[in-house]
Amino acid sequence: MMSKNIPNRILLTENELPKQWYNVRADMPEQHDPFINPTTMKPAVKEDFYPIFAEELCKQEFSTERYIDIPEEVQAYYKMYRPSPLHRAYNLEKILDTPAKIYYKYEGSNTSGSHKLNSAIAQAYYNKEQGITHITTETGAGQWGTALAMACSFYNIPLDVYMVKISAEQKPYRKAVIETYGANVIPSPSNTTNVGRAILEKDPNCTGSLGTAISEAVEKATSTPNTRYALGSVLNQVLLHQSIIGAESKLQLEKVDEYPDIIIGCAGGGSNLGGLISDFMGDKLTGKANPYFIAVEPAACPSLSRGKYAYDFCDTGHVTPLAKMYTLGSGFIPSSIHAGGLRYHGMSPIVSKLYHDGYLDEARALFQNHIFDAATLFAKTESILPAPESAHAIAAAIDEAKKCKEAGEAKTILFGLTGNGAYDLAAYMNYKAGNMQDYAPTDEELEKGFATLPKIPGIQE
Amino acid sequence: MMSKNIPNRILLTENELPKQWYNVRADMPEQHDPFINPTTMKPAVKEDFYPIFAEELCKQEFSTERYIDIPEEVQAYYKMYRPSPLHRAYNLEKILDTPAKIYYKYEGSNTSGSHKLNSAIAQAYYNKEQGITHITTETGAGQWGTALAMACSFYNIPLDVYMVKISAEQKPYRKAVIETYGANVIPSPSNTTNVGRAILEKDPNCTGSLGTAISEAVEKATSTPNTRYALGSVLNQVLLHQSIIGAESKLQLEKVDEYPDIIIGCAGGGSNLGGLISDFMGDKLTGKANPYFIAVEPAACPSLSRGKYAYDFCDTGHVTPLAKMYTLGSGFIPSSIHAGGLRYHGMSPIVSKLYHDGYLDEARALFQNHIFDAATLFAKTESILPAPESAHAIAAAIDEAKKCKEAGEAKTILFGLTGNGAYDLAAYMNYKAGNMQDYAPTDEELEKGFATLPKIPGIQE
Repeated sequence: MMSKNIPNRILLTENELPKQWYNVRADMPEQHDPFINPTTMKPAVKEDFYPIFAEELCKQEFSTERYIDIPEEVQAYYKMYRPSPLHRAYNLEKILDTPAKIYYKYEGSNTSGSHKLNSAIAQAYYNKEQGITHITTETGAGQWGTALAMACSFYNIPLDVYMVKISAEQKPYRKAVIETYGANVIPSPSNTTNVGRAILEKDPNCTGSLGTAISEAVEKATSTPNTRYALGSVLNQVLLHQSIIGAESKLQLEKVDEYPDIIIGCAGGGSNLGGLISDFMGDKLTGKANPYFIAVEPAACPSLSRGKYAYDFCDTGHVTPLAKMYTLGSGFIPSSIHAGGLRYHGMSPIVSKLYHDGYLDEARALFQNHIFDAATLFAKTESILPAPESAHAIAAAIDEAKKCKEAGEAKTILFGLTGNGAYDLAAYMNYKAGNMQDYAPTDEELEKGFATLPKIPGIQE
Repeated sequence: MMSKNIPNRILLTENELPKQWYNVRADMPEQHDPFINPTTMKPAVKEDFYPIFAEELCKQEFSTERYIDIPEEVQAYYKMYRPSPLHRAYNLEKILDTPAKIYYKYEGSNTSGSHKLNSAIAQAYYNKEQGITHITTETGAGQWGTALAMACSFYNIPLDVYMVKISAEQKPYRKAVIETYGANVIPSPSNTTNVGRAILEKDPNCTGSLGTAISEAVEKATSTPNTRYALGSVLNQVLLHQSIIGAESKLQLEKVDEYPDIIIGCAGGGSNLGGLISDFMGDKLTGKANPYFIAVEPAACPSLSRGKYAYDFCDTGHVTPLAKMYTLGSGFIPSSIHAGGLRYHGMSPIVSKLYHDGYLDEARALFQNHIFDAATLFAKTESILPAPESAHAIAAAIDEAKKCKEAGEAKTILFGLTGNGAYDLAAYMNYKAGNMQDYAPTDEELEKGFATLPKIPGIQE
C-alpha cells in the first residue's frame, strides 16, 4: 500500500514566499570568465551594459552577493500566482511501477504559460524604478514576449516586441495575447531599425530570425531616449530571478521531509534549469548535500552535450556582449523542432561554468519522439498537458524512474515542469500523425557552427 | 492604507477538500416540475434515464438528499488540481478605486481550462464503477470535450466525442488536445448514426450544430452495447458535482472572516452558476444569510432574463427528456457570439426554479463589447486572461463595484472565474480590431423561438 501522508500538491502560503533571490555565484569556487565588450573586444564592466539594461539589472549581472532582496512591489506581483505548487506524481509513479518518488515543480499556471514571468516582472520593475519609459525585447516562440507584455502592462510601461515575422504569421494567437496586454508587436525584420531596413532591402520577403529580432530590439533600445532592452534567458540576472523556483521547491520538499537525489531540468538558454537548481547547487557547493543534476537538451540543439566551451556572441546579429559558454557557434542553425524555447546556440555562462567544473553532473540530449511519448504519458496520468520544452525533463525523469525500478532503488527525483502546452497543439498533432522527425546534427554540421566562433586577440585565437 | 492581512490567494490544503457534494434541492421549499419522457410524454422516473446515463448518475438526477459522498477515487483525481484558489482582486479594486472587496474563485488552471472537469471526473467514475465500457458525448466550443477526454483517459474508458463539424475544422487545436488524451473525435453530422446519415443525405456539406451532435451522441450510446452518454451542463447531477466550487469558496471566505453580499456567476446551461451558488443558496433557503445572487447572460442568448418558464427539450434534436426551465425554445438559434459556452437555449431546471421562485435575485444580459472591456481590464490588472464566458461575471462584478463606489458601500463581492482564455484569442483579436457585434434578439425573433416550444397534452397546451 502506498502511503499518502504526502499530499498530491505541496502548497506554500504567500507568507512563505521567499523574500530574497539566492545568487549561486556567491558559492561558486570560481566565477565564469568575464563578458567581453563587442566594440572594444576587451573584458566588460557593468557600466558597459548601462545603455542596454536598467542599471540595477546590470549590477545584478555582475553581483556575487549571496542574497538579493526581492523588492516588495515584485513580491506583490509574485503573490498573484506564487508560490507555485510542487506536485507529487503519484499516478506517474504507479503506471511506471517504480519505487522512485517523483516530484515536479509546476510553473505553467500563469497566463504566460511558463516560468518566464518570474524574470519579466523583476526586469519591468527595475526599469520602472529607474524612470525608463519604454522597453524593447524580441520573441520567437512567444512565451517570453507574453510574460514581458504582462509585466509591462502591470507596471504601465510601453513595450515593443520584435516578433520573428514567420512566428507572428504562424502564431497569430500568441501575437493576440501579447497585444491584449497592450504591447506593440513588430514583425521582424521591420523598417523601424537600420538592421531591419538593410535586411529588407536585400530581401523584402525575409521571414526573420531570432538573431535579427534581437539585433533590432537592441538597436531600438540604444537609439531611443530613455529606452532599455530586456532578455528572457542566458543572463545572470535572469538566473537570479528564476532562483525563486528552486528556493520554493526546497522549502516544499522540506515540509515533507524530502531531499532530492536527482534534479532534472530542460535546458535552452538555461533560465529554468539555473533557477531550479540554484538553491540545491548551493548545498552541493558548500558540502551540505550532493544531489545529481541532469540538464536535458534536444538532440537537435545539444549545446552542453556536444558544444564547445568558448567565447561567443549571445545573438546571431553580433550586437550583444560576448560570453564564455558552451556553444554550437552563433552561426549554427538548429533544425526546426517543436521545443522552440530550447533552440538556442549557447547556454547561460553560470550553467556552463558549473557544467565545465563538474558540479552540474550530466547533460543529456533526447530525440523529439521520445519526449512526446513522455509528454503524452504524463498528460494522461498527471492530467497536465506539458509544453514540449518541459517534456524534455519529464522524459529524463521517467528514464531515471525506470532505472530505479531495475535497480530496486527508491530515489527521490525532482524535475521542473516549466510550462503548459496550450499553445503547442500543432506539435502534438504532428507527433500523433507520426510526422515528427528525430534529428541530430552531424559532426560536419557542428564543425560549420564552430567555424563561426569569434576570434578575440589575446583571448581566443 | 489598504490592509493586506487577507492574502492575494486564499488556499486550502487537500485535507480541506470537501468530502461531500451539497445538493441544494434538499433545502428548496419546492422542487422543479418533473422531467418528461419524450417517448410517452408522461412524467419520467429515474429508470427512464438508465439507458442513457449510468444508474448512479440517474439516482443523483432525482435525489433530494442533502449531502452525497464524493467517492474516494473522485477525490483522488480532484486532489491533482483542487482545492482551487480563491483570489482577492486587490489590483482590480485599486484601479476601480472602489470600497468593495472583490473575490473570485478560479477554476481555469487545469488543462481543460474550466470548471467542466469537476463533473467529467464524477461522470466517468460512475460509468467505470458500473462496468460501462464506452462513453459518448458531444462538444461545441470544446471545453467539455476536453474535460471528459481527460477524465476518461484517467479512468481508461474509450470515449467518442461528437464535435460540431464546423468547430472541429475551425478549432483544430481543441480537437488535437481531445485526441491527445486518447478520445475519438467524430465531426458531426457523421455517417456513424441514423440521425447523421439522414442529415448528410439531404445536405452532404452540412456543417453541423450542437443539437445534431447531441442527437448523434445519444443515439450512439443507446444503440451500442454497454455504452452511456454524458452531458456537461443543465442536469441536476452536474450542478451537484459543481457544488464543490461553492463549498470551497465558502470555506475560503470563512478563513478570512468574510461572507459575500453579492454572488455573481455567468450562466449558459447553469453548471457553473449553480455550482458556485449552491452552498450560499442553502444559507439563504434556511435563513442563515441573505446574499444577493446575479446570473449573467449574453444579450444574444438571454434565456433567464427574456425566456419563458416552460417545458422544453434539452436539445434541438428532441431525443432527450423534457425539462421545465427558462427557455428561448429549442428552435431558437442564438447569434454567433464568442462566449460559445453560453450559447444555449435553456437553463438548468434547478437554477430556473430558484429564479422563478425569487431566490436567485437577478438575471442580467450583457453585450459582448462590454464584457471584453471588462476582460481586458481584468487581464491587465489581475494578470489572468479570462475566457469570454467568465468575462460576463467579471463585467457584472465591475459594474457592482462601481455602484459601491458611488454609494460609498464596502460590499463583499464574489464571482466565479470559470476558465482561462488560452483558446479564445480569436475573440480577443476580433474585439481589438473593433469588429465585435453587439446583438440582442428582437421580440419577433424571440417569438419565433417560443413557437417551437412543444405541446404536451394535459401539461402544456
